[in-house]
Amino acid sequence: MSQHPSPIQDLINTFRTLPGIGAKSAERIVFRLLSLPKAERETFAKKVASLDEGIQACAECGRYDTATPCSICANPRRDRTIICLVAEPQDILAIEKTGDYSGVYHLLGGVLNPLEGITPEKLRIEALINRVKRPAPKIREIIIATNPDMEGESTALYIARLLKPFSILTTRLARGLPLGANIEYADEMTLGSSLKERKKI
Amino acid sequence: MSQHPSPIQDLINTFRTLPGIGAKSAERIVFRLLSLPKAERETFAKKVASLDEGIQACAECGRYDTATPCSICANPRRDRTIICLVAEPQDILAIEKTGDYSGVYHLLGGVLNPLEGITPEKLRIEALINRVKRPAPKIREIIIATNPDMEGESTALYIARLLKPFSILTTRLARGLPLGANIEYADEMTLGSSLKERKKI
Repeated sequence: MSQHPSPIQDLINTFRTLPGIGAKSAERIVFRLLSLPKAERETFAKKVASLDEGIQACAECGRYDTATPCSICANPRRDRTIICLVAEPQDILAIEKTGDYSGVYHLLGGVLNPLEGITPEKLRIEALINRVKRPAPKIREIIIATNPDMEGESTALYIARLLKPFSILTTRLARGLPLGANIEYADEMTLGSSLKERKKI
Repeated sequence: MSQHPSPIQDLINTFRTLPGIGAKSAERIVFRLLSLPKAERETFAKKVASLDEGIQACAECGRYDTATPCSICANPRRDRTIICLVAEPQDILAIEKTGDYSGVYHLLGGVLNPLEGITPEKLRIEALINRVKRPAPKIREIIIATNPDMEGESTALYIARLLKPFSILTTRLARGLPLGANIEYADEMTLGSSLKERKKI
């Protein structure tokens, strides 16, 4: 026996395609599901199947919400002249939770990664340029909030270059030591950034 | 906005109840599911809902399989006088993959954990005692293969005590250094066990 019975192995393989789930987690998840009462498993399945019901991508920012324009784009108290550009939907909630941002968003839907076939056309870059081109609201600033890793940085640079002709202020999230960090263990790049961008107190 | 739109948040919360999935993984998984074509999401849901179709717990060992008795219990080449006692279904496949075991299994369905309400009646302990009591096949040995952690150890001790009156050889998986381990970093208990149980070469 080198595999589980087929319906079990089949679902294990499906779970493994989801982000952050490896072979062992998938096994544990599937056996947990199998141990649930049938009704509970069916409720779970139903939630997955009907996930998109009543949910749509906002025509403006691309964010998933129960209406379009989404609750953020439709909110008159949000500054529609500042756009924060994020890679993934969950990044929006992370930024909202800071309570420090009152502009609107634009969801890219990923970062450039030519090796995995993620080319500019696969992302919502054209939609961003269209937003920028419109006469009103006149965009003042675009904050590029991709992750500070290789793909995030190259995506930021690519988009910053595309935005150049529009003479809009293009910014990037600050880099530096995170709260609670230990200087001794900080990587050179982060420590270097935090030195170069040191602030007067 | 401190939460995702409700169908999204609802499924995130459901995923968080599964083993090994935290808040961030659940978010990433749900947004991945949302980005899939509807048909793919529905196939996934269907696999979850129909997971138990054609699957049943073996009446003998408790293992999930497409038939009862399961393919292991029904296999005439397996030694039915040796039972390997495991906590979780996935442990069976792990042991099978070693190729070093030709006896049969008994699935406990967990380990004792009174704080979480896992008492002896919640596990398949009575079924084990019934197997042991039967005149044929006469059980020669029970290998207790629970994890070498606190719950696993106390479960092993509890069951070993229950088995005492039957005068069956009761064994436990050997403890020692895992392959590729570094003596310098081994914990004292493991290193101690590997010293006490050292082997002549």
